[in-house]
Amino acid sequence: MKRTKIKDLLNTTEFGQQVTVKGWVRTFRNNQFIAINDGSSINNIQAVVDFTTTEESVLKRITTGSAVSVTGQVIESLGKGQRVEIKVEQLEIIGDCDAEKYPLQPKKHSLEFLREIAHLRFRTNTFNAVFKVRNALAYAIHKFFNERGFVYMHTPVITGSDAEGAGEMFRVTTLDLDNLPRTEDGSINYKEDFFGKSTNLTVSGQLEGELAALAFGEIYTFGPTFRAENSNTTRHLAEFWMIEPEMAFYELDDNMDLAEELLKYVIRYALDNCSDELEFLKGRLQEEEKQKPQNERSELDLITKLNFCLENDFERITYTEAIQILKNSKPNQKKQFKYLIEDWGADLQSEHERYLVEKHFKKPVILTDYPAEIKAFYMKQNSTDEQGRNTVRAMDILFPGIGEIVGGSQREESLEKLERRMKEMHIPVEEMNWFLDTRRFGSVPHSGFGLGFERLVLFVTGMTNIRDVIPFPRTPKNAEF
Amino acid sequence: MKRTKIKDLLNTTEFGQQVTVKGWVRTFRNNQFIAINDGSSINNIQAVVDFTTTEESVLKRITTGSAVSVTGQVIESLGKGQRVEIKVEQLEIIGDCDAEKYPLQPKKHSLEFLREIAHLRFRTNTFNAVFKVRNALAYAIHKFFNERGFVYMHTPVITGSDAEGAGEMFRVTTLDLDNLPRTEDGSINYKEDFFGKSTNLTVSGQLEGELAALAFGEIYTFGPTFRAENSNTTRHLAEFWMIEPEMAFYELDDNMDLAEELLKYVIRYALDNCSDELEFLKGRLQEEEKQKPQNERSELDLITKLNFCLENDFERITYTEAIQILKNSKPNQKKQFKYLIEDWGADLQSEHERYLVEKHFKKPVILTDYPAEIKAFYMKQNSTDEQGRNTVRAMDILFPGIGEIVGGSQREESLEKLERRMKEMHIPVEEMNWFLDTRRFGSVPHSGFGLGFERLVLFVTGMTNIRDVIPFPRTPKNAEF
Repeated sequence: MKRTKIKDLLNTTEFGQQVTVKGWVRTFRNNQFIAINDGSSINNIQAVVDFTTTEESVLKRITTGSAVSVTGQVIESLGKGQRVEIKVEQLEIIGDCDAEKYPLQPKKHSLEFLREIAHLRFRTNTFNAVFKVRNALAYAIHKFFNERGFVYMHTPVITGSDAEGAGEMFRVTTLDLDNLPRTEDGSINYKEDFFGKSTNLTVSGQLEGELAALAFGEIYTFGPTFRAENSNTTRHLAEFWMIEPEMAFYELDDNMDLAEELLKYVIRYALDNCSDELEFLKGRLQEEEKQKPQNERSELDLITKLNFCLENDFERITYTEAIQILKNSKPNQKKQFKYLIEDWGADLQSEHERYLVEKHFKKPVILTDYPAEIKAFYMKQNSTDEQGRNTVRAMDILFPGIGEIVGGSQREESLEKLERRMKEMHIPVEEMNWFLDTRRFGSVPHSGFGLGFERLVLFVTGMTNIRDVIPFPRTPKNAEF
Repeated sequence: MKRTKIKDLLNTTEFGQQVTVKGWVRTFRNNQFIAINDGSSINNIQAVVDFTTTEESVLKRITTGSAVSVTGQVIESLGKGQRVEIKVEQLEIIGDCDAEKYPLQPKKHSLEFLREIAHLRFRTNTFNAVFKVRNALAYAIHKFFNERGFVYMHTPVITGSDAEGAGEMFRVTTLDLDNLPRTEDGSINYKEDFFGKSTNLTVSGQLEGELAALAFGEIYTFGPTFRAENSNTTRHLAEFWMIEPEMAFYELDDNMDLAEELLKYVIRYALDNCSDELEFLKGRLQEEEKQKPQNERSELDLITKLNFCLENDFERITYTEAIQILKNSKPNQKKQFKYLIEDWGADLQSEHERYLVEKHFKKPVILTDYPAEIKAFYMKQNSTDEQGRNTVRAMDILFPGIGEIVGGSQREESLEKLERRMKEMHIPVEEMNWFLDTRRFGSVPHSGFGLGFERLVLFVTGMTNIRDVIPFPRTPKNAEF
């Protein structure tokens, strides 16, 4: 008999029908009530066995984690907490699970413990909910761009170029490290490496994205990116997924509009399609926050916070305005910030971003027009202001509890200005000729941004450690599974 | 004035409206007719300028590749080949393009030449069509799985494990190759590497996918995978994208049904959503085939071939049956095969696969139940047959012109059998304990397969070199852009 998914069964009104359900036992109470989960829903179906007619040896094998197949009639449930249950007529143990050895018990486990058994944590309610929401957000991103005619581009993961001009990249090689080939002068001969040169894992698909945008008009990437940064924080991963749209004929305002529209669209999609999961995660967060002192708890519950994001325009201010607000702020005046804001030009720290978003505006903030000195070479240069200050058409979107979730800019489309800036920043112009060709041949104003996917999932699920929103996190000293 | 996308304009019936179009000049004829493309469509819009009232200096700058903005009235076109055109009232050159230096000329370029300038080839009709089809196929894949409740999983790209037990992997490291840390016995100390051990780029997300399937029921991956194989063929890439669904409670027949359904769904989606692009690619292929001798040309044109795939069931036969057919085939009897088929157990070569698909059955073929010896350790073992032969529940889907497009199997769910097989194949059981836990705790029958995305794009676009269906191909000695 074809199996029925539990998700469908929980919504059925066809009582009396005969069904087969296959899944894993979550709990078995009173030698009678099996809670079965098949992964299709965060919720279990209750299957009621008649222990008077079931062999004792079979009943003993119905343990947490074991796989079973039950066939029986769908009936209305008289029990609390469920509408539907199955009156079991046939029961088969598909796969045993030794309760003594199984690490997951029918009780609450800490997130730290579950991280150690990441290969089994998918079987818990929390991670069922988290990865269902992650799945919905990924789909919503593709749907959003598809509806707008954007072309999905797979930019290369292995690259010979270095988009951000910084170090912190992983080397990719097939050279035998025990027997490295050398050139005559004794240096390593990368000509003998797989790609005939030194290669790394990409930190961004943006530059390649620009090439495509200046042909297709509007494109986006959605792929893995890498940072070999030795940061052991709750917000950093060595391997993470990023969405990078790049659009010809977009100026900074169009870029901000698109980013805000995208974020609202995907949050709404999650609210519409993951109500059970978000309801569960809201409760989880509330439990977690009970451990905190009152003044550190969130003012809004998870779902209220998500709705609040949808209902309000993101605040758009310039870096210069932000510095003014921060300079005059209480924590700055009272020297409570670790890094005090004194002069224009300072790079904003997480504490400043959080103050702006969580205390001052109490909503998402888009900061624009940063000092050129603290931003990347490819950003469009504003004209020098009256005080002689140079800014670029950057925009960062800051989210409560997350900080920077989007970083983007209008791109410098002038070949002359771009080349000058590259030279100032010691970026090898020759090697980047392919990139400069976009400014050489039919250059147009264009813009783009990067959205860190795991940070988005963090925000929507209310989880607090980025290791808990990606299946198998890669962090310093950790590449298990 | 807000720009109108050319794709929308080409479908309009609102003649007389005022629009602004921005894009790149493809051709400029008779000092009067500009063909503009903005990437939204493979087709251009014709903009007609009045050269008597336009400055000579501006007219001179309308060259192939330059970026322009034109504003004017939409009128019905009297010219051949288009329904709509724009009577230009305002024209602005956004970005110049020096015709002397621009590598793309309004003529046919060879695919080899365009591969050298992969950053500009997006601006040609062929690559516009190819990457639009690629985009549509990627979206269709997500849509297919989303409609069926599959969970999209991002399995790790950097991995400490080796799914296929084979070499041919890229090393990922942050060690300073000029100054490698050593242990006391002089070997390289990978404990000092970023992840505290030796790591590689993944060759498959399957093993991690199985972990997820045994919690969520049905999952799929869609991400980059890597082979450090020194193959310079038209079918191999060092970096390529793969789709890997993995499903609990699926046996081999369910697995084949899903794969066939998926392939038909995405081909139909491309036919429904990329008719202009496929029409163009059909013409391109016909032109290309004119270079070939009559007997090497395809019997079916591109679109007919795609429809043919939809309308016919894939032929399902066992390896043993295939060997019988091949043994008795003309090319085997006449010794025309390079590798003659003599005994059961031989690995099938591309020439054999092509014979089965293109000559014998003339449609896609699913081969099942291969000899255990030539397949991976994790495949479900059939019971030994009367002749003492051991086979596994593998299935490979072979497509005309492509060869293997899908490889999959039912997985061995018995802990005992799996462990025994791993030991026979010298796979370190200890290191794979996390994988074996799926068989230890509530094991169930399950199946999955891998679909090579670029091979699918090759098939649907009718392109013949895999380097032409991925934006920036990575192959031995080549990681440009």
